[in-house]
Amino acid sequence: MHNEEFTIEGRNAVIEAFRSGKTIDKLYVLEGCKDGPIQTVLREAKKKDTIVQFVKKDRLDQMSRTGKHQGVIAHAAAYEYSEIEDIFALAEKKGEVPFVIILDNIEDPHNLGAIIRTANQAGAHGVIIPKRHAVGLTATVARTSAGALNFTPVVKVTNIANTIEQLKERGLWFVCADMDGDVMYNMDLKGPIGLVIGNEGEGVGRLVKEKCDFVASIPMKGDIDSLNASVAAGVLAFEIVRQRGEWKK
Amino acid sequence: MHNEEFTIEGRNAVIEAFRSGKTIDKLYVLEGCKDGPIQTVLREAKKKDTIVQFVKKDRLDQMSRTGKHQGVIAHAAAYEYSEIEDIFALAEKKGEVPFVIILDNIEDPHNLGAIIRTANQAGAHGVIIPKRHAVGLTATVARTSAGALNFTPVVKVTNIANTIEQLKERGLWFVCADMDGDVMYNMDLKGPIGLVIGNEGEGVGRLVKEKCDFVASIPMKGDIDSLNASVAAGVLAFEIVRQRGEWKK
Repeated sequence: MHNEEFTIEGRNAVIEAFRSGKTIDKLYVLEGCKDGPIQTVLREAKKKDTIVQFVKKDRLDQMSRTGKHQGVIAHAAAYEYSEIEDIFALAEKKGEVPFVIILDNIEDPHNLGAIIRTANQAGAHGVIIPKRHAVGLTATVARTSAGALNFTPVVKVTNIANTIEQLKERGLWFVCADMDGDVMYNMDLKGPIGLVIGNEGEGVGRLVKEKCDFVASIPMKGDIDSLNASVAAGVLAFEIVRQRGEWKK
Repeated sequence: MHNEEFTIEGRNAVIEAFRSGKTIDKLYVLEGCKDGPIQTVLREAKKKDTIVQFVKKDRLDQMSRTGKHQGVIAHAAAYEYSEIEDIFALAEKKGEVPFVIILDNIEDPHNLGAIIRTANQAGAHGVIIPKRHAVGLTATVARTSAGALNFTPVVKVTNIANTIEQLKERGLWFVCADMDGDVMYNMDLKGPIGLVIGNEGEGVGRLVKEKCDFVASIPMKGDIDSLNASVAAGVLAFEIVRQRGEWKK
């Protein structure tokens, strides 16, 4: 893993980045631009299922650091992503039942960084984030994770609901955090578990929630709507720690 | 309470702000500037025990929104602070034993906002912050608190250690969060309590820690040093909620 933030500008540089296998979080392409090299860039992006956004020249000029973007700017991940297998390998290596945190569209890099930090400290074996509509592993996320990104695998998947299905087949139970759930203190959270945390504004999406086995709520006494997403993730993750009782050893 | 952020610029405007009783979180004064009106500003600041920082002209020019700072810029609190009595009044009104969160020098406005939000949801009756070396109630804090600032009293004190002493006389027990404490799950956190959370980098200061009755730790399984301060506050605050058992009602 490495921790520089990459903005790659220019047609050849972006094509090379794709071909070298680098993870591109997002690709910005000049609106209406359809010449040969741009078509090549778009073909590579399609192969890798990269998110492409078509933008006006002003926007590209503004984003450009070199002033020579030639109609293409790519944001590469500051850190390499891991694979689902890395999560299971880590759990096995530690001799623990798997504990995964799944983030349904966290948008704020400070929240993502803080949650990866929490995942590390709560002994989760990995964090799963979606490819679209969510923040990736930017330099801010890396910094906010306080080094946890070097230890806790972060996996990016195309479809959270499908990933939950696949992990269920491998024995995980899924609990999502929502206001209308059972109070978490009354639930059994000791087995192989996937903890699903929703988006800052909208909570867990309907499709993802339907895939979950349980809905857990944090008992709220306040006058407002909810907790900060990274605080909610922390409170739930440490309820799992408490119930598992590994801290007694 | 009101929620605009106030930057007050210019000598007369700042003197008027002080005289009207507005809470000034911080005062910036041009280095080496010693004329009459500036002396008046500094006298008012001293009366109110306001933090004064002497800065170079470049810095003031950069901070200025009007371009007419005349060597003085004041940051007023975006929200009014409460008094210690407001905290006890709220606990009494709700018929609950007091629960206060004390922040020893939190510097990041996102952390402060998230902690005020947590305090509200965990049913704490107030948050106490120090006057110096800490962020005040800025617009960012107000926004991050997601409205909690309208419900949960925030009190600013000159000396956290002295305030702890005063609150002990009123029956509160103090627990601070630190790595070397007893695991929080094994402690009794049900009585009238003050939960002390330390600075992001350095934790709870020595003097403050010495005033605390107990040191509680969150069991950490990770490879890194600590949790994000607002996550740690959330995990501890909800351990108090769990133990108090009010969620069973």
